[in-house]
Amino acid sequence: MNEKPQARPEARLPKGLFDTGAEEIRATANMLDTIRGVFESYGFEPLDTPALEYSDALGKFLPDQDRPNEGVFSFKDDDEQWLSLRYDLTAPLARYVAENYQSLPKPFRRYQSGPVWRNEKPGPGRFRQFTQFDADTVGASSVAADAELCMLAADTLEALGIPRGAYVVKVNNRKVLDGVMESIGVGGNNNVGKRLAVLRAIDKLDRLGPDGVRALLGAGRKDESGDFTSGAKLDPTQIEYVLAVIQHKRTLEGGASEEVKAWNTVLETNEVARAGFAEMHNIEDLVRTAGFGPDCIRIDPSIVRGLEYYTGPVFEAELTTPIKDERGQPIRLGSVVSGGRYDGLVERFTGEKVPATGISIGVSRLLFGLKTLGKIGTEATQGPIVVLVLDKDRMADYQKMAQELRAAGIRAELYLGDSGMKAQMKYADKRNSPCAVIQGGDEKAKGEVTIKDLILGANLTAIKDRDEYLKKQAEAQFAVPEVKLVEAVKRVLARHKS
Amino acid sequence: MNEKPQARPEARLPKGLFDTGAEEIRATANMLDTIRGVFESYGFEPLDTPALEYSDALGKFLPDQDRPNEGVFSFKDDDEQWLSLRYDLTAPLARYVAENYQSLPKPFRRYQSGPVWRNEKPGPGRFRQFTQFDADTVGASSVAADAELCMLAADTLEALGIPRGAYVVKVNNRKVLDGVMESIGVGGNNNVGKRLAVLRAIDKLDRLGPDGVRALLGAGRKDESGDFTSGAKLDPTQIEYVLAVIQHKRTLEGGASEEVKAWNTVLETNEVARAGFAEMHNIEDLVRTAGFGPDCIRIDPSIVRGLEYYTGPVFEAELTTPIKDERGQPIRLGSVVSGGRYDGLVERFTGEKVPATGISIGVSRLLFGLKTLGKIGTEATQGPIVVLVLDKDRMADYQKMAQELRAAGIRAELYLGDSGMKAQMKYADKRNSPCAVIQGGDEKAKGEVTIKDLILGANLTAIKDRDEYLKKQAEAQFAVPEVKLVEAVKRVLARHKS
Repeated sequence: MNEKPQARPEARLPKGLFDTGAEEIRATANMLDTIRGVFESYGFEPLDTPALEYSDALGKFLPDQDRPNEGVFSFKDDDEQWLSLRYDLTAPLARYVAENYQSLPKPFRRYQSGPVWRNEKPGPGRFRQFTQFDADTVGASSVAADAELCMLAADTLEALGIPRGAYVVKVNNRKVLDGVMESIGVGGNNNVGKRLAVLRAIDKLDRLGPDGVRALLGAGRKDESGDFTSGAKLDPTQIEYVLAVIQHKRTLEGGASEEVKAWNTVLETNEVARAGFAEMHNIEDLVRTAGFGPDCIRIDPSIVRGLEYYTGPVFEAELTTPIKDERGQPIRLGSVVSGGRYDGLVERFTGEKVPATGISIGVSRLLFGLKTLGKIGTEATQGPIVVLVLDKDRMADYQKMAQELRAAGIRAELYLGDSGMKAQMKYADKRNSPCAVIQGGDEKAKGEVTIKDLILGANLTAIKDRDEYLKKQAEAQFAVPEVKLVEAVKRVLARHKS
Repeated sequence: MNEKPQARPEARLPKGLFDTGAEEIRATANMLDTIRGVFESYGFEPLDTPALEYSDALGKFLPDQDRPNEGVFSFKDDDEQWLSLRYDLTAPLARYVAENYQSLPKPFRRYQSGPVWRNEKPGPGRFRQFTQFDADTVGASSVAADAELCMLAADTLEALGIPRGAYVVKVNNRKVLDGVMESIGVGGNNNVGKRLAVLRAIDKLDRLGPDGVRALLGAGRKDESGDFTSGAKLDPTQIEYVLAVIQHKRTLEGGASEEVKAWNTVLETNEVARAGFAEMHNIEDLVRTAGFGPDCIRIDPSIVRGLEYYTGPVFEAELTTPIKDERGQPIRLGSVVSGGRYDGLVERFTGEKVPATGISIGVSRLLFGLKTLGKIGTEATQGPIVVLVLDKDRMADYQKMAQELRAAGIRAELYLGDSGMKAQMKYADKRNSPCAVIQGGDEKAKGEVTIKDLILGANLTAIKDRDEYLKKQAEAQFAVPEVKLVEAVKRVLARHKS
């Protein structure tokens, strides 16, 4: 490298990105295994797609695409074509299906898990890289596919230890919302942008409450940081009608005016809305027959999902047990599973309609929820046995001991640093090691090795009775012949099996 | 979305990127589980870092950094700072260690598995996204850490089913190579670039043979595609000396000249080279004591690894069983594990020396090797039970059957398409389903359900004897009362348990 000596770079991560440590990785892996098991039991098959795609293949379907950077990390390839990091797992699936349609079983059920990237302003619980776990069914126009995904979401949450009644899968239908828009006069091709703004506004009901949504349905809203989001610019009666519908009311406070009555009539006779209502009731029948009551899957007219590509049923699952942070403050976790039907995504490529529907699990958010509900142990995993190095010239002997332990199926490591006995014991503690293996010159001369039980040892100070103390002390540290090393370590491990 | 109707994008992936199907994903997951198990048994702990890092934090350490695009995908963040997709897992580890040094156990053993990205010209077996599985030990200057990694590589390959003798871990030391360079007069600060070019040339011995390396040590070399790589510009005697050393010979063909004799003397007395030799023999002692003979771990002076950040021992493992492609042509698989010591990487950030060493497994390449050697089954996994839909109005009943099977721990799916009976049976075949569940009007009236064993059924045509045929036919398709559905399916599954 011909680089000139230069200023040292600072060791830091870009905003909105983070490292993940051992305990979090293990907990996530366990959770993903459970999810995978349920998804596989429904007949879904795994698929992986690369992180990078052509930008035009992904399209622009993010809720907040109106931000200047459009939410996606993009850059030009050598051949001047634009590439993007995938922002979800649905757009790549559509590309994959369009590319491989002939060879796929139809309908095609696939699951995929992996990181996605959003070039957005990071905030609490909002990162620029996060993991999704998706299941999608492509090529099935029947709402049985949508009902199945609601059941899948419910079964997955139960498999993760969330009992029935402690979560709810909410179902709505974009067609009903489209009917509402038509009834208030914002249907048609000229109002595409306006309708999308309405959907995005409704999607925030949970987070912003009716007043926030009211602002977003009207002129717009300034958030805490001062950023202004422009609104859908509906007039006040339209706004109140939309708010009433999504809150299960079809008349406004103070009785229905003639205008509102007329809108209700339009909504009730609107074909699209009627189809939407029929689909919802069909889904309801299917899940009820399969044993899912309204305590776990139910219709909720406020669910819209901000993504513009949804065309029919939309779903959202959340945990209903109130969650608190470390200081006892209630936390709004938001939805842990979400999805819907997107019959137009494959058509973008092929020009032919290919019905599709899917759900996506927000992995970190769900993990956080499970942890907070105590469904995932948070204590540190037991560490490996540590073989201390008292005489550096005998490194080969110590390494052999570690290797013997491993050959017996015991997790074991050799201390590889330069420090003395005391620091090595501290290291073993930091590694959460259940026991240390020690052989100094004296022990070597006698052909022995000392085993130190670090868990028993740590509890010694609490013992008041002298005889008891001496007895436990002898148990906590004892010598055995070298050939009994594995046996003795196994004995100590058996003491602390949880 | 206010987008105007536009040309349809083509469904395709950028060059050098690929999708991964179910069988490949399952085989990879099994392999990674085994690797993880061995790495954990040595006391390594998992760590994840994000895909994106600041470009200056990653540095430029790729072997082919002299190419115009420098091998890395980079782009500017909103705040005008450069971000890059990680090109390996070592540079992010160095950043992580520098950032969290105080809180880490020292030495710190970590493993990490994940995709990395190279913006390079793709070719056979050469992709722009691929997966690495790394183990590194940071904070241990002792070559016991290097020896341990060689043992780890050997144990991992054996755990994956490669027997001893069918792989070899080769060890060399950069210090010896540095000594060689000094002896031929290209030491010192003025020759940094030249030495790197020499290392990269030697690294290609396996792939290009002595003549290719000779060209790269000299003026340079044009590859098959016509791309020219400029060489190290050594003079002919230097070239032959380097080639002799890395091929285990210290004299040149035709006897040693005075010049070569002088170089040998310099090499033998050179302190750096002597340290390198001592380290190699130390590693040899350690692995031999732990039970690894020269049949699995041995010194090989041709190993250099192209990465410039290595400072001491370097390793490389390869499978020694000859591998052939489908047409019987021998395949050069290359190294499946590689690594080395890089004592300067953390220092880049902190200014303080932090010794470190690691290995990296090329996941796809190793998987390919295991498959070719028959260590990984390539037959398709058994698919789910398929519940057919003969009467669309009774979708809820069929869905309930699928749900009953799943509740009994059986993988089951409902047919969700619009096609008739024949197409549904074809679908079940495509899904590799062991059996189909069928209930038409007649069966419903009798309260029965028909079970069709698709594996037995497929074998019927081969039966010549009529009685035998009828007997097997009856076994392959039979009706049971609805309440016996789960029991009957379990019976069929038991027939085909492998």
